[in-house]
Amino acid sequence: MLSKAQIKYIQSLQHKKNRQKFGQFVAEGDKIVQELLLAGQPVSAVYATRDWLSDHRDLAEKATGADVTEVDEAGLKQLSSLSTPNGALAIVTVPTQKGTPELAGQISLMLETVQDPGNLGTIIRIADWFGIKQVICSPDCVDAYNAKTVQSTMGSITRVKVLTADLVALLKEQAAVPAFAATLDGENIADFSKITEGVILIGNESRGLSNELIEQCSHKITIPRLGGAESLNAAVATGIICGRLLI
Amino acid sequence: MLSKAQIKYIQSLQHKKNRQKFGQFVAEGDKIVQELLLAGQPVSAVYATRDWLSDHRDLAEKATGADVTEVDEAGLKQLSSLSTPNGALAIVTVPTQKGTPELAGQISLMLETVQDPGNLGTIIRIADWFGIKQVICSPDCVDAYNAKTVQSTMGSITRVKVLTADLVALLKEQAAVPAFAATLDGENIADFSKITEGVILIGNESRGLSNELIEQCSHKITIPRLGGAESLNAAVATGIICGRLLI
Repeated sequence: MLSKAQIKYIQSLQHKKNRQKFGQFVAEGDKIVQELLLAGQPVSAVYATRDWLSDHRDLAEKATGADVTEVDEAGLKQLSSLSTPNGALAIVTVPTQKGTPELAGQISLMLETVQDPGNLGTIIRIADWFGIKQVICSPDCVDAYNAKTVQSTMGSITRVKVLTADLVALLKEQAAVPAFAATLDGENIADFSKITEGVILIGNESRGLSNELIEQCSHKITIPRLGGAESLNAAVATGIICGRLLI
Repeated sequence: MLSKAQIKYIQSLQHKKNRQKFGQFVAEGDKIVQELLLAGQPVSAVYATRDWLSDHRDLAEKATGADVTEVDEAGLKQLSSLSTPNGALAIVTVPTQKGTPELAGQISLMLETVQDPGNLGTIIRIADWFGIKQVICSPDCVDAYNAKTVQSTMGSITRVKVLTADLVALLKEQAAVPAFAATLDGENIADFSKITEGVILIGNESRGLSNELIEQCSHKITIPRLGGAESLNAAVATGIICGRLLI
């Protein structure tokens, strides 16, 4: 049985300011809740239907010591910000960011002012596919822990670190690491070979990257346009660039 | 002023069976309506706010001879299936498909059972970016002329032909054209060089391509997975493959 206080708390986590205040976020859906539990993520509570618990109660109780509460479909729907909550919902602690992100010796994605939650989630999923361990967001990107983004990652949020930083300062500080700015007037990405260290920078959905940030990059890269479309979706562009530089 | 009959007709086009019956679809939003008119597409009517018409009345009236009706914001919202109709809405004739699609001498995309309207729209936009002139859908793909798909194409629906065909029969018939099936167990796409003729096949969001269709293809291709994600979004995968095979 759900208490009013529980309902109120979980619903409050739909707002960024409360996620920041309490350091927790909500992950919704059968698959992602299972992945969080299997990955040993800091899940503090699981709310799930009887059906879901009949298959996964052991996992929920033993793997992490989370509080497990059985709810009916209507109760789950009340907690959820999605139209189909799909069996289970978890309350998870937002990972704390320690120190300055390290760019050397690995591939990182950097996102400037990415605004669409679905795009951010899809980009985190792409990072995970290509083995990229960290996605570094400018402070004005959409929050990675809103329900839509978490869902769009399809579980990848459990494997990819999402960090926030002053991107210009970070690139200045670690200027020895190659940085590839996605722009409309750079070198053809097909002319680059596979890289094993570097930062790939993707800008805002309509405006692209700021000049201030492009100036800190060692390379300006472009996906050549052969037809009539004015632009590509930001997540699609990220995928295409990773597909040229990382494999 | 809108008549009840007009409202009823336009709203009826939100359903595929009516689009097929009347051979018309609705395109919504300032930018796509402008692109349709500029491209000389068969627009039979434009419904737009006074603001929009003050900038574009000439284009709407002269370019195609479409009936132009001024509506207020509330009227436009009543006609629209989107939450923000954004100035204008056009009634457009669905292009008629003539004969069997020709595969030789060009690049085509083939989509099997793609179900998500946003994915289909994004794929049409990717096709347009890479200069692909035709996207051939299996009969059970989501309809390309629903409002969400049209909007996701960001205007590319005016430049890319979207056709429907029995994909297996078509590949059998034109077996001399190279066909690249996107699968999870094919050759690394990074091992292929640029192609100038061929068909790129993308399957359903969860199940991928059917074996029946894969068997008709000359190549099985794969985007190598370097990390933990189980899959990539269908539109992202299409972009990555085009980014390896076409540039």
